[in-house]
This record gives sequence, C-alpha cells and structure tokens, in this order.
Amino acid sequence: MRIFGLDEARVMALAAGVTMRVGEGGGAEPPDAATAAHIFARAAWTGLAEPGDGLAGLLVTELGAVTALQVVHDSWTARRISGLIRQRRGVGGGELDLGQSRGDEEEFETTLQQGLERWRPRLFLDEVVRSLEAAHRVAARLLLPGDALWPPALGDLAAHQPIALWWRGESAALLALPYSIALVGSRAATQYGEHVTMEASAGLCDRGFAIVSGAAYGIDGMAHRAALASNGQTVAFLAGGVDRFYPTGHEALLTRIVQAGAVISELPCGASPTKWRFLQRNRLIAAASAATVVLEAGWRSGSLNTAGHAAALGRPLGAVPGPVTSPASAGCHRLIREYDAECVTNASEMAELAGVRPVAAGLTIPVGDTATGLTEAGLGRTSDQVRVFDALSVRSARPVADIARRSGLSLTSVRGALGGLGLEGVVRERASGWSRTT
Amino acid sequence: MRIFGLDEARVMALAAGVTMRVGEGGGAEPPDAATAAHIFARAAWTGLAEPGDGLAGLLVTELGAVTALQVVHDSWTARRISGLIRQRRGVGGGELDLGQSRGDEEEFETTLQQGLERWRPRLFLDEVVRSLEAAHRVAARLLLPGDALWPPALGDLAAHQPIALWWRGESAALLALPYSIALVGSRAATQYGEHVTMEASAGLCDRGFAIVSGAAYGIDGMAHRAALASNGQTVAFLAGGVDRFYPTGHEALLTRIVQAGAVISELPCGASPTKWRFLQRNRLIAAASAATVVLEAGWRSGSLNTAGHAAALGRPLGAVPGPVTSPASAGCHRLIREYDAECVTNASEMAELAGVRPVAAGLTIPVGDTATGLTEAGLGRTSDQVRVFDALSVRSARPVADIARRSGLSLTSVRGALGGLGLEGVVRERASGWSRTT
Repeated sequence: MRIFGLDEARVMALAAGVTMRVGEGGGAEPPDAATAAHIFARAAWTGLAEPGDGLAGLLVTELGAVTALQVVHDSWTARRISGLIRQRRGVGGGELDLGQSRGDEEEFETTLQQGLERWRPRLFLDEVVRSLEAAHRVAARLLLPGDALWPPALGDLAAHQPIALWWRGESAALLALPYSIALVGSRAATQYGEHVTMEASAGLCDRGFAIVSGAAYGIDGMAHRAALASNGQTVAFLAGGVDRFYPTGHEALLTRIVQAGAVISELPCGASPTKWRFLQRNRLIAAASAATVVLEAGWRSGSLNTAGHAAALGRPLGAVPGPVTSPASAGCHRLIREYDAECVTNASEMAELAGVRPVAAGLTIPVGDTATGLTEAGLGRTSDQVRVFDALSVRSARPVADIARRSGLSLTSVRGALGGLGLEGVVRERASGWSRTT
Repeated sequence: MRIFGLDEARVMALAAGVTMRVGEGGGAEPPDAATAAHIFARAAWTGLAEPGDGLAGLLVTELGAVTALQVVHDSWTARRISGLIRQRRGVGGGELDLGQSRGDEEEFETTLQQGLERWRPRLFLDEVVRSLEAAHRVAARLLLPGDALWPPALGDLAAHQPIALWWRGESAALLALPYSIALVGSRAATQYGEHVTMEASAGLCDRGFAIVSGAAYGIDGMAHRAALASNGQTVAFLAGGVDRFYPTGHEALLTRIVQAGAVISELPCGASPTKWRFLQRNRLIAAASAATVVLEAGWRSGSLNTAGHAAALGRPLGAVPGPVTSPASAGCHRLIREYDAECVTNASEMAELAGVRPVAAGLTIPVGDTATGLTEAGLGRTSDQVRVFDALSVRSARPVADIARRSGLSLTSVRGALGGLGLEGVVRERASGWSRTT
C-alpha cells in the first residue's frame, strides 16, 4: 500500500523517526500506518502553509491533515473541495468560517482558490521527505495539537494555531511552558538592558518560572543565557527550521538550549527565517507563555510586536522602565503609556504579573503519554470536537457563546461537540461554562 | 476706638502695610477699620493655628475671623462659643461639621475645647504685630480667600484651605497658578534626575506653564532654576515664614524667585519650618497646581506625600520613570505601579497630563481688583455663602449634593446660600449644576 504515492513502510519509518527517541518512551508503540500518514501530512503542511495561515488551519481541521494534503496534491478544484467539506459536515453543519469574517459559499471558494494557488507551487513530496530526514538527523521531533507535550495555551490562537511544531531538546522544558514568562527586547540592547534582563531571568528561574524568548542578539540572548546559568528551564522559539540556528552567532547558545531546554519552530527543517516568519514566531512566544515582559525596546522595536500579540491574546503584559533619556527604553515607556503594559521593575513584580505559581523547584511534573499518536485522529474526534476542545481551558470555564467565538463554530455545533466530548469525559460543565477536565 | 485692645489707627496701618505696595494698586483705597480688623485677625490666625487645622477654619468661617479671634482672646468657654455659633446660624442652620465626621453638640464642644487649648497658649498680640511689621519690611503681603489673587484651586481643600497666605513677589506669578505644574522630587537627586527636571521645567515654561515647587535642594531647586533661566513663571511654596528663606543654601535662589516669580506660605513671618508644616505645605503645592509630576523620588521620598495629596484631590499625577537599578527612581515606579500615576517621559506628555492650556506666552491676563478688601467681610456674605462660594469652580458646574459635600453644609444651607450668591450675580446655574461666573 502506498501513501501519497510513497511506500507505506517508508512513511511509517519517517514518522517514527520524528516521534520517538532512542532510549525514551519506553512502552510507546511506533505509529501505525494511519497515524504515520497523519504525521507525514501535518509535517508536509508546515512547509506548504506560511505560519498563521488560518485557511490552511481550517482545511486541516475540516478534512483532517491527510485528506487536506491529498486534495491539494491531487489538484482538486476549490468547488470540489468546498463540496467535500459540506458533505463531511452534513446538514446543519454550520457555516464555513474564514477566521474573522463569515462569507457565503462563493466567497469561500474564491478564498480557497487563492489558498490552493499559494500551496500547490510548494508541494514537493521529496522535500517533505528530506525535511523529515533532516529532522531525524538532528533529533528534532514533530509535535501535533493534542499531544501531551503540545503547549495547551496555543489553543488561544484558534484558527491561527500552528498545524504542527518542530522541536529539539528536553520535554521538561515544554512541560514548563504553562509556568513560563517571555522576556523579550531589542537586539541593540544597552548595558542597562542586559543587566536588567540578567537579573530578571535569573530571579524568575529561582522562583521556578521557565524563560521563553526568541534567541535573538541583545535582550533575547541574555534572557536565555541567564536562565541556563541559573539551571532554569528555557525555550527558544525560532523563525526558521530547528536544524539551522539563527542568528549564526548564537549557534553555541542554541546548542546549549537544546541540551538543557528546548528550541521550537513551526517551520520544517531547512526553512529560512523571513520577516513574516519572525512576526508570526512572535505570536507563538506571546501565546505559549503566561506573561510577556519587554525589558528594553526602542520606539519601533520588533519586540513591541510580541507585546501586541500578548495584549491581543489577553496575556499579562509588562514593560521595564528605563532612563527617559535612553532611546533604547522609549518602546517600554510607550507600552506603559499607550498599551496599558504594567510597569515592572524586578523579578518579583514580573512573577506577580504572570498570575500563575510554578510548582516548587525540584518537583517533577508527571508526564502523561507522550506518544504522538494521541492526536485528534487517534482519538477519533470529529473536527468540531477538536476545535471545541482547543477552544476550552483547564483553568477557566467558558460560556458556550465564548467557545463558539473562539472556535469559529455555530452555537449548535458547539453544543453538539460538547456533548460528544462530555461522553469522552474530557470536558465538564460548571456554573460559568465549560472547561477541560485535564 | 480700639481693636483687640490695640489702637485702631495702628491696626489700620499694619493692615495697609501688608495689603498695598508702593507704586502699585493705583486706585485701591487703604483698608477701612472693619477690613483692617479682619486682616489683622486672619493674620493672627495664621500664627495661632497650625496649617490644615480644620477646626480653626470652621470657627473662622462660622464666626468671621474677628469674632473667632475675639472669643479666643477673651477666653470664652467652648460651650459659650458653641452657643454663639448656633445663635448666628439660627433655627435650621444645619449641623456643625467637623471636617470628616459629624458629631453631636457635646462632641463638638469637646473638640472645640481641644482647639482652644491649642490656640490660647499662642495668642500674643505683640507677636502678631511683630509678624505684620516683619512682613511689611520684606514687602510680604497677606492674601485672603476671595481676593483676586487668591488661588481659586485651593477651594478644593474645603475646610482645610489656608485661613490666609503670606507671599512675596510678582502678582503675575500668582495669576499663572491655574496653568501651573508642580515639579517635585527628592532632595538627594542624581545627575539623571536633575537633567530630566531641567528639560521638563524649561519645556513646560516654553509651553506657557508656570512651575510650582517647594524650593528644596535637588529636584525642587532645579525646577525653579530652569524656570527662571527660561523666563518662565515660578512659584515656591515654603513651610516657614516668607521672611526667612529655607534651606539657607537656597537664599540666592529664593531671592531670584521673589524678583521674577513668587514665594508663598501660610505661616506668618518669623515662623520656622517643621516636619508637619512641610507635609501641610505639600498639600498646597498639590492643590494650587493643575497637575503634579514627581521627577525622581526614592521609595520613601517626601515628594510621595505631595503625590498623595494630588491623588486625593483628584489632580492629575505623573511620575517620570528611571533606571530600575536606581533607588532614586524607586518612588516614581511605585507611584506608577501602586498609585496609578501616569508614566510621563517629557514636557509634552506632562503638558498633556495637566489637561489645561496656558494662555499664549506674552499675553497678559487682565488683573481685577487686587485690594485685599474684597473679602467675604467686605462683601457682606454669610458664612454659608462664603463656604458655598469656595466650594464652587469657574470651570466646572457642580451639583448641589457635591457642593454640600465640599463645603460641609447641609443641602438646605447650600440651596439658601446659592440663592443669595445668585442675587449677587457671582454664581449661575447650569444644566449640570452650579458654577462661579468669574
């Protein structure tokens, strides 16, 4: 049997190569053929669609990654794909949602046509194979939504959450993300900014927080370095593939982060960082961490983009003030004045800002089933159930209308999906709405 | 005829000596005997009561300064004074208000007894005469509530507004107070703090704002200096008499402020600054200016007291951030974090904070009748009318309930007083409440 024209055993081997690691996952089974196809398809989509492509996210959610890849591969027309989606949904399956706006059928087909024109020129199965091989060589693994290691907070990105994530490093670093604070700032940092970042990062690690940043020169680099020096957890989100470290001057630093923490990207191995990918990478930094703090930033610093994402997601946002005579702090003061960022001056205030308490240092967070098979496919959930589950939080209960808004589904669809998830025992109703049980 | 046992002509001369200035006030008449007695009595009260003594303010408002002084001088009992107040008010004159709390008759008499015990040991008419003579020697003048030069914003202090103010300098500086910004901060200022203060003060003067401060070493001194260097208006509020400059190291600076601006105090000539008087002086700085900005302050700086007064009065409050590594800026960051102070980084943002626009530089604000005779006594107003008038603003209309709260009078008393003031043409009713006409 063949998958996308590739030998089934080959696809299974490739999938196993990016989901299992030698000496780890004791009882975990290698992925079966169906799961392997799913892994391969999601991996392919990370190369087809640019980060944050909501239409790709929608297609994968509606049809599953395999079928979605198949219809692009087999050059289906937009109309035929649209028809398949409606057929899958059945009667009363709700309107097709395109992220922000709801369009009628024709509008959707036009949008889909544009998507197909973006994706088709990029679909070379050989390249997908090469990126999976490259990933295996550097021990990079693929993480899918729903996996035990998947950062649950990314669900807040709704249709814009990554289709999959590539990562290298220690799983403990990923599991620490719910108790992480993003420390970001300018590449052109001053001595003051670097000093404050070092103190903040070390102080937060001492309090059990993980440090998230972007591995750039200046503030980002100092945040990671101080976390490593403090034996803290640290996670770097990259704008290109995790096999090629950028900036090159931080190759040694990123190597150390892989050894003691984790590097993550939604781009496949071999992908170069671009302006767009940096901006989209910033949304992951903001979404994955419990709070974002800008330590030093000029008036137009790229770190203000990360701050904007944090604010848009409702994440706590802090900024460290500096001398008003220093242009390197002008962006921080701007965040405090115009974007309601909280003025934070030390690690203790940043910890307070985050509003979460890390588990006591030294305690091990129990790890569940880390096999990649635990995806929506593996659980046999409908696409509505997957979207609704993604829209739920463990911590706070959400009303049905809120879940509908987050998932982009109709109220009827949300209620239907919640029923199924309830039978599965993974959601529960509270007075103020629905939440995940775990 | 004698006033408080003093020769009437002597009292009239003393009063004239602190209300008129050679070569000024062309058509203004010297105060008549009644006005002179009133001026003498208010001057005496500035020495009897400590700044912010709400009970003294109440007594002076209820009985007029002359009678209030007479009953203290003649050693009346608290009961007899209380009886006189009730008699003056007549039936339905409202409860006696002691600032924050309302007490019954007995409570009021106890409080009054305590006041008499505070004031009587200080009442030496010779000393009042000496302070008036000293004031005349340094060309200091006495300003009474209701005078054209009286800073109207002090009315927001209600029962705690000064009984009178002593001042030296140019009347233009007093008239500029509605367009003033208080720039305050630590005595132990850093180079950074002084630099930022200089830029702020000069920039605000360029925009037509007057600079209010406390003439202390460090930030205060720099604020005044930069205003003088920019040919701007500047007003220093002192915690002791205006005849003795404090700190002594700022004698030259204060001399220049008198020449080009103004120094003000609610203490009579000869009075020394005390801790209490500094704290009470801070309330005048906050109340007299349109906004207060703290430029550099340690965690426990006295300038935070001024900021607290500004916040309590609902005045816009700003703080300039600095390096988080500098303890000299810790108070500013505290104000931003805990007291909702706005983070301001330059003169333009401070001007915006103030929410008022100064008249264009070079324009002269027309000065009305500057003779001190224009007091409540001169106008023949009842005490209720005086208190209600004080509680009104020219800029914003206030509902009757708000006026009652500000003046400490009952709704009935406020309505009665507004009627009288309306006939006088000095107040008017708008849709949202009552305001002064001028």
